[in-house]
Amino acid sequence: MSLEAELAAIVGTANVITEAEALRPAVSDWRGRYSGRARCLVRPAATAEVARVVAACARHGAAMVPQGGNTGVCGGAIPDAGGREVIVSLARMNRIRGLDAANNTIAVEAGCILAEVNRAAEAAGRLFPMDLGSEGSCQIGGTISTNAGGTRVLRWGNMRELVLGLEVVLADGRVLDAMRGLRKDNAGYDLKQMFIGAEGTLGIVTGAVLKLVPRPAASATAFVALESCEAALGLIDHLRGALGDRLSAFELISAPQLEAVLAQIPGTRRPLATTAPWWVLLEAADSGAQQVLDDALEQGLMQALDAGLARDASVARSGREAQEFWRLRHSVSEANVKTGRVISHDTSVPVSRVPEFIARCSGLAGRFDGLRLHVVGHLGDGNVHMVAIFPPGQPGLDALAREVSREVHEIAAGLGGSIAAEHGVGQSLRDQLAICRSPVELDLMRGLKRLLDPQGLMNPGKVVPAG
Amino acid sequence: MSLEAELAAIVGTANVITEAEALRPAVSDWRGRYSGRARCLVRPAATAEVARVVAACARHGAAMVPQGGNTGVCGGAIPDAGGREVIVSLARMNRIRGLDAANNTIAVEAGCILAEVNRAAEAAGRLFPMDLGSEGSCQIGGTISTNAGGTRVLRWGNMRELVLGLEVVLADGRVLDAMRGLRKDNAGYDLKQMFIGAEGTLGIVTGAVLKLVPRPAASATAFVALESCEAALGLIDHLRGALGDRLSAFELISAPQLEAVLAQIPGTRRPLATTAPWWVLLEAADSGAQQVLDDALEQGLMQALDAGLARDASVARSGREAQEFWRLRHSVSEANVKTGRVISHDTSVPVSRVPEFIARCSGLAGRFDGLRLHVVGHLGDGNVHMVAIFPPGQPGLDALAREVSREVHEIAAGLGGSIAAEHGVGQSLRDQLAICRSPVELDLMRGLKRLLDPQGLMNPGKVVPAG
Repeated sequence: MSLEAELAAIVGTANVITEAEALRPAVSDWRGRYSGRARCLVRPAATAEVARVVAACARHGAAMVPQGGNTGVCGGAIPDAGGREVIVSLARMNRIRGLDAANNTIAVEAGCILAEVNRAAEAAGRLFPMDLGSEGSCQIGGTISTNAGGTRVLRWGNMRELVLGLEVVLADGRVLDAMRGLRKDNAGYDLKQMFIGAEGTLGIVTGAVLKLVPRPAASATAFVALESCEAALGLIDHLRGALGDRLSAFELISAPQLEAVLAQIPGTRRPLATTAPWWVLLEAADSGAQQVLDDALEQGLMQALDAGLARDASVARSGREAQEFWRLRHSVSEANVKTGRVISHDTSVPVSRVPEFIARCSGLAGRFDGLRLHVVGHLGDGNVHMVAIFPPGQPGLDALAREVSREVHEIAAGLGGSIAAEHGVGQSLRDQLAICRSPVELDLMRGLKRLLDPQGLMNPGKVVPAG
Repeated sequence: MSLEAELAAIVGTANVITEAEALRPAVSDWRGRYSGRARCLVRPAATAEVARVVAACARHGAAMVPQGGNTGVCGGAIPDAGGREVIVSLARMNRIRGLDAANNTIAVEAGCILAEVNRAAEAAGRLFPMDLGSEGSCQIGGTISTNAGGTRVLRWGNMRELVLGLEVVLADGRVLDAMRGLRKDNAGYDLKQMFIGAEGTLGIVTGAVLKLVPRPAASATAFVALESCEAALGLIDHLRGALGDRLSAFELISAPQLEAVLAQIPGTRRPLATTAPWWVLLEAADSGAQQVLDDALEQGLMQALDAGLARDASVARSGREAQEFWRLRHSVSEANVKTGRVISHDTSVPVSRVPEFIARCSGLAGRFDGLRLHVVGHLGDGNVHMVAIFPPGQPGLDALAREVSREVHEIAAGLGGSIAAEHGVGQSLRDQLAICRSPVELDLMRGLKRLLDPQGLMNPGKVVPAG
């Protein structure tokens, strides 16, 4: 029996897609950077179906590409050009299996949309603290497989810190059922850790038990003008002392980046009358009364102004104003695309090295004709996105892009940093991992890949560099 | 050349211990539950020395037992009875390599004592939030290798959540250097996760980069009397809503457990005049003024009393009174040992299942002659230590102990729990892992062990059940 016939017997004919037109949305990414061809796309609706699909593909020696919301930016969910890979879509596995309010956990299937998990948590008076721009379309399985980050890592951690239990279909079709909602559990090796951030190269995540937290009753947002990015380090240190864990977001934005947003995005307006070379958008959240939090933030910012850590600051006086502030931040990608050819980077360095990282990257502007640099990032995580932009139509752009990226990555690695902070590795960074990973580390990665995927059928060509 | 001569060439003759008397403290645990014999004990002073020691042992086919402060309770650092194993002590690797205040990290060697790390953090205005009774003697390498828990996991997580970077000597003597201080880093598989909680069975942890947090300026402690353990669930839910992340400890204590402490430990006194079947010791911590925190806690507790969630409560009015409250909690083990033959358990269940777990375990008291049950645990983590105590001298105690443990473990597993929450597996729980781990999980553990320790020389006989 052909593989397609076997798959149809498992999931039904309607859930095995083979026509080129129907496959089109699944074989390229939303930015149009990566595209490939697929043998077919299969849509299982339950863990047992995924297990049978994987076992069938393994018997036929067919490589599999797991795909969630296809919101990634590194090509991790896109098949290669050969047209022999099977896309395994998790979209139909979108049940919330249960919410345990007293345990502060929610059990979900991999295909659940992040926003739906957020809504279920909210209905139970809880917060699922993962905050991503793609929340309306990204799926939980993808956020786990990329160990997603976002703007609230400062307070609640990456996806890895939010996963208590995991269910994974292994490369041979067996199911690893570790769907436990335990906050302390050391009964042997913590196997789920291997699959978090592995981008489907070691198995297919089908379900998870996620941590919830008490829903903050109050939140406050401020836009702050700064003299320098060094001042931002002083400001975050001061505010973490003053506000403790209340500080939930601290986003650094360079003046050229903010100006690009104001110029390109209709309806945006300047958050403060001041001009400044650097800006910070910050958020605090807490239990208790709104006024108490507002007062604490106002007081913390007044002290910062007095201490010369900030030039000016504006606390949002309404939810609407807070949304306007956040819109400036969330419009960054759109504004940059309108500005020119964008080469974005997802580097991290120790927080203390951020000013040096930015200074050294800024040196590149003088060396590449037409290059503009926009800086936006999560300062509390040391995760600074250095966005390089060339004028559209400039000749030799692909080669220039590679050269600039190489330089930015080497600067980050030289400061003890990473070239893949929160977006994953996928296809795009796989062959550059050696910039920030040692031969011993790469060798261990390959060993882990061989152990869990001896046939090399799980999302091949992603994450792990060839040996 | 003999192995001993090779080791002496690496670390110096004085640091290869072979005399039985000098080995004695290292071949048994502090509770006297486990003892073995060792071929020798070697004390390397640097990572490169550990690497050469491991390589030499591997060439000679000699098994190694890494040992930190030897404060464990599961026999994980104790050699077997054969007298052929080499104990690798990390005690001389006790340097703090650096503290980066702006990055909120500290880089330490595995042999650093926890209390010294705490002191270094404090000197920099930071907190290293791991709180263990053994802080004066346990070493960081041991806390990482057991993924230690403690009383503040509720707020800051287990050791796994506090480790950003790791340095490990692998079974073949190569060094995995992942000493990075990054809060976001997804450049390939997160290899360090495999070694955290592995109890030295996959390699020897030699260094780590640990997370620090802003040092709370205020803390408040309270003792609360409760009608039932169900009420404790209501109380923690209410206080997490009212206090948010300020709630940093929430320890459940049964009346018989508290009475045993009051009876056995000189100088202790009743925290409240009330009697009650259940007690909670809780702590809140925050930035900002002490009075503000005190008021918030008082108000939260008053609401709880009004809502019938608590019978009575006392907030410590001084640091000394807070210490007296905590002394009641920290004296539990000592009091229990004085009460009889102690069989302690380290189970966890979902927080919502704690009352059912306790109720089902309580049923054991009627089935075993002379059995007393004391309950003490970290309710917010679902980590309840069910302490079974038989009168000293009761005949057949070893068999009884095994039978009671088996029952407690099966009750926990039946509620989706774990038999090894925060103390590790070591020798004591290795052969019981199948109670709470599936054949697929055990098979993956064995695969990981074979991958990283193909000769089976790293702490053999610990953690991973024989296949």
